[in-house]
Amino acid sequence: FQAEDGIRDCLLSRGLGDVYKRQISGYADEIYLAQSLSEAIQDSVYIQESGPEDLFIKKELTQQIDTATPENIPIASSTSGIPTSLYASNLKGRYRCLVAHPINPPHLIPAVEIVPAPFTSEAITQNVKEIIISIDKEPLELKKEIPGFVVNRLQGALLSEAFNLVKDGISTAEDIDKAISQGLGLRWSFMGPFQTIHLNAPEGIAGYVERYEKMYREMFNKPDMDWSSVVKLGLEEELLNLYQLSDREKHEKERDDKLTKLFLHKIKP
Amino acid sequence: FQAEDGIRDCLLSRGLGDVYKRQISGYADEIYLAQSLSEAIQDSVYIQESGPEDLFIKKELTQQIDTATPENIPIASSTSGIPTSLYASNLKGRYRCLVAHPINPPHLIPAVEIVPAPFTSEAITQNVKEIIISIDKEPLELKKEIPGFVVNRLQGALLSEAFNLVKDGISTAEDIDKAISQGLGLRWSFMGPFQTIHLNAPEGIAGYVERYEKMYREMFNKPDMDWSSVVKLGLEEELLNLYQLSDREKHEKERDDKLTKLFLHKIKP
Repeated sequence: FQAEDGIRDCLLSRGLGDVYKRQISGYADEIYLAQSLSEAIQDSVYIQESGPEDLFIKKELTQQIDTATPENIPIASSTSGIPTSLYASNLKGRYRCLVAHPINPPHLIPAVEIVPAPFTSEAITQNVKEIIISIDKEPLELKKEIPGFVVNRLQGALLSEAFNLVKDGISTAEDIDKAISQGLGLRWSFMGPFQTIHLNAPEGIAGYVERYEKMYREMFNKPDMDWSSVVKLGLEEELLNLYQLSDREKHEKERDDKLTKLFLHKIKP
Repeated sequence: FQAEDGIRDCLLSRGLGDVYKRQISGYADEIYLAQSLSEAIQDSVYIQESGPEDLFIKKELTQQIDTATPENIPIASSTSGIPTSLYASNLKGRYRCLVAHPINPPHLIPAVEIVPAPFTSEAITQNVKEIIISIDKEPLELKKEIPGFVVNRLQGALLSEAFNLVKDGISTAEDIDKAISQGLGLRWSFMGPFQTIHLNAPEGIAGYVERYEKMYREMFNKPDMDWSSVVKLGLEEELLNLYQLSDREKHEKERDDKLTKLFLHKIKP
């Protein structure tokens, strides 16, 4: 990855740190291709296994890594959806196996999903989170394993609806792409979906759900859809702590400022 | 809406047009509050009805507007999910009724959903699209009516999964927000979901679906999920025309450049 000169100059003139310099000068010099697994593992403090998304291969590979690697070195997998319980439960070193799922393109997207199995030791999970933070990434720790984790479940839910809309002849793929890239995706680039709806109503998430739950229920023909209970059982409390409603006006101004800048960044490279 | 001085100077120095100047200087001076419907409608060339999301009120209001407004003036509704067929089918002027759904905040988000009813005249739909383009917005025309249209169905599908993840104790709302604002939302701010997956695989969408359909099917426990047929029945053809695979390397570089700039825009205001 080699960014254009303008961006490099801009980054350097702003005095941004090593991580950002790396993002423009590339990592190629720092990569060494080992001839064997034992050579690759030598002197390592952390293993990131990025084999194919195939349960059989992942089992084999993780077992080989576990055998070859000294104790207490974390073995994280880049898998985008396979829980560690499915490929490491029989290993001696299963306590140091877990998922650390980077998002494509990994050198530019901060979020990294951390998914420990029930048998992963807390010390290992903590260690991996610290390593992720130390390279300026943002670890998101799942509280339980689930296939697809959070990122691909959110992406999959949206894709699933997008495929249905094309199948039913409601919209072209081009217009669906624009609904995101000229619509929802602009807000989502700095504001998650819960923050968005929480700050959408003067009463926060409770007001939003009161107003719109019925619409979504009918839209998807899911009479059992029950967002109100989730709101009452802790979601409202969490959101009121995260995003104070008394700051709504400030948040709104910040949102508009960020959208205006995003605009500039999109229209004038 | 009043943006900070820095942004205004930046916009002006770049010689951006009237529309962008308006985005920073506000619209308040251009708004006039009429004392009656007939006064508000006087000399209008286009009506944007933005009443509450209530079918009964929308019916009443649209009927009143239809009676008071000269023929051939389009009556567009800001509704975020109620199809025109449900509130205007009995009106004399139903031929000029349709939905033009702006996305919040409407002065900063380009996408506007255009949803004609089966009885809306094509000339009116065309006229509304031209008006939307003339104010530098991006019309997305649905080919058929559907509750929630495209934008809220995509948002609703993602929200629905997000609520489930919180309900099942998989993740906090905070981490779900980060999975979007520090993850998927960064790509989506300039690249829609179909473009993203099409450019993700060397063989385009067909390769992506071949590789990941099974994963999504199992993740959502939906054995009937059938993306492959959608791909074969036109989606692949549309995407190959929109985003040439021979340009993949160029697209990838553009994506990385845009992400780097987005980064700058997020970390250094």
